[in-house]
Amino acid sequence: MNKGKTRQNNLKNDLFIRACYRQDVERTPVWMMRQAGRYLPQYRAIREKYDFTTMYKTPEIATEVTLQPVDFLKVDAAILFSDILVVPEAMGMSLEFFEGKGPLFSQPIRDKKQVDQLRPIVPEEDLYFVLEAIKMIRKELNGRVPLIGFSGAPWTLAAYMVEGGKSRNFTYIKNLRYSNPELLSKLLEKITEAVILYLKAQIRAGVQAVQLFDTWAGLLDPQGFEQFALKYARRVFESLKNMGIPLIYFAKGAGIWLEKLKECQADVLGLDWTVDIGWARNRVGDQFALQGNLDPTVLLSSPKIIRQEIVKILTNFGKANGHIFNLGHGILPNVTPENAKVFIQAVKEESVRFH
Amino acid sequence: MNKGKTRQNNLKNDLFIRACYRQDVERTPVWMMRQAGRYLPQYRAIREKYDFTTMYKTPEIATEVTLQPVDFLKVDAAILFSDILVVPEAMGMSLEFFEGKGPLFSQPIRDKKQVDQLRPIVPEEDLYFVLEAIKMIRKELNGRVPLIGFSGAPWTLAAYMVEGGKSRNFTYIKNLRYSNPELLSKLLEKITEAVILYLKAQIRAGVQAVQLFDTWAGLLDPQGFEQFALKYARRVFESLKNMGIPLIYFAKGAGIWLEKLKECQADVLGLDWTVDIGWARNRVGDQFALQGNLDPTVLLSSPKIIRQEIVKILTNFGKANGHIFNLGHGILPNVTPENAKVFIQAVKEESVRFH
Repeated sequence: MNKGKTRQNNLKNDLFIRACYRQDVERTPVWMMRQAGRYLPQYRAIREKYDFTTMYKTPEIATEVTLQPVDFLKVDAAILFSDILVVPEAMGMSLEFFEGKGPLFSQPIRDKKQVDQLRPIVPEEDLYFVLEAIKMIRKELNGRVPLIGFSGAPWTLAAYMVEGGKSRNFTYIKNLRYSNPELLSKLLEKITEAVILYLKAQIRAGVQAVQLFDTWAGLLDPQGFEQFALKYARRVFESLKNMGIPLIYFAKGAGIWLEKLKECQADVLGLDWTVDIGWARNRVGDQFALQGNLDPTVLLSSPKIIRQEIVKILTNFGKANGHIFNLGHGILPNVTPENAKVFIQAVKEESVRFH
Repeated sequence: MNKGKTRQNNLKNDLFIRACYRQDVERTPVWMMRQAGRYLPQYRAIREKYDFTTMYKTPEIATEVTLQPVDFLKVDAAILFSDILVVPEAMGMSLEFFEGKGPLFSQPIRDKKQVDQLRPIVPEEDLYFVLEAIKMIRKELNGRVPLIGFSGAPWTLAAYMVEGGKSRNFTYIKNLRYSNPELLSKLLEKITEAVILYLKAQIRAGVQAVQLFDTWAGLLDPQGFEQFALKYARRVFESLKNMGIPLIYFAKGAGIWLEKLKECQADVLGLDWTVDIGWARNRVGDQFALQGNLDPTVLLSSPKIIRQEIVKILTNFGKANGHIFNLGHGILPNVTPENAKVFIQAVKEESVRFH
């Protein structure tokens, strides 16, 4: 039961780490995806001064923004402020940010030549700004809560790299999945290598848990999910298995494939809000901790309703170890900071009686 | 086993009807959602002359467009060319079409007063153009294949009525679901009444099957799906149960709730491409026929791959009655007419050995 203790021995609050390993906790730990984000006035104040790229490429700013929800909301874990597209960029793709449209690759991957041209990453050089930020954040956190590192999962990164940006039907990557699975596999192999190097470097720099975001998993068919998403996510987790920190797989829209998800080799499964967490709990047994899964739109309602919906999820999960409370997806930008605070506080208060 | 025979006794091709009732067929029937659509040059030729609204409000044009895939692709069922937003419009909402942006309600429903103002529909007056089209199509079809009528499901119509149009996060309707479930229920009651009247009128006018499209079911949480989508869809099906035609429920993104779906009172469950059809088959047993579920992006690939993916689905469903082949969602506009034809033809050829 001392799994992960070596890297986490100086934590003042290690509830999150213990819950990831399904150990006893006094209450359910809680954090929010996209907790360092636009719903916070203190985030927007910085965002007004710098563009998004500058924010995550400047360790001082990334540190400040990462710490904001820790200071203001008292969440049980910090998550590195960064962008998942830094990996494709490090592989040689040129990324442009368009205000209002988000990040776009001007030359999306469409053929073998482009896949061949992608280069292996050297995290200490290509992504030094992330590693610097991690060290700085760890210092600033000073053991208050653990720091979660992350990466886009190979499939999700491939989706962005092939489409060029967000897409309506993701027809390029989906067409590749059927028309040229060999090329897609080759692309995924290369991305997987990069993600492994990147996450190992994050761990060496000091992150105390790692989450893989597979935002676009739900676009796939069942066989495609196994072959093009799960397979490569599992390879990432297998490579990190012995590094002594909890591993989290958040595959959005993949709840229907829960039986397959059990093969992913992570410690924790993140669930979106379409999954009944009690149903999932019964099916994964003691194999995984579960993270989630309040519908993010609940935070647009009232403190009373937020508390009520939290209690539903806690009740549904039941009196058992292995629950990290979170939203089922990122916090919406139009949530008030007050309601975000209510969410964190209510989980802390209501969850005590479930332990 | 003569269920539905009264209304379908003059059909030259009744494979679709028989499959809906899980009766013996010589091969698997096939049609495509959005088969009367932009991928067809003959559709685009008409679309160049008329705006979308004119097309579905003019029975002659709706008839011509409905027949196009029957003539060109030889599908086993025709589906009425119309728009799901005619119901909210008949309830008093004013709909505007913006080129490229699709249809929008300029005054979306946000409060009780607006819900109260929605009026009961009189299909024979408000939606006479649909009923005229149905009669004209039946005449033109002359029993070649059955005609499927349809409506948006109450939840999906409510989503459009509250958001005003397509939306990124559907925050207004989702917020209503948590903050004011009473008002949402009231809205859904009114829509359900309208949908029932509308579909009964369609049936009287001559449609030989009915499909309820619950495109936005997958936005909901599990409890929300039961309370705000399934409950009202079931009410519609219960009202139509004795009208002697097959009833189809297509709830996109709802595969994860298959156990709940079994309560819907339809004859056929439509499945999107994220569902393993063999898995679903095992779970619904003899209670439902299944419709679906090829990933629409497969049609962007080659004839060889299209055939291969069709065989996978046929094999996965197995040698059993009760399968209507379809895509897992509407055909994409950039599919070639040749590939659409390959799809229909390959299902016809490959499915023989499964019966």
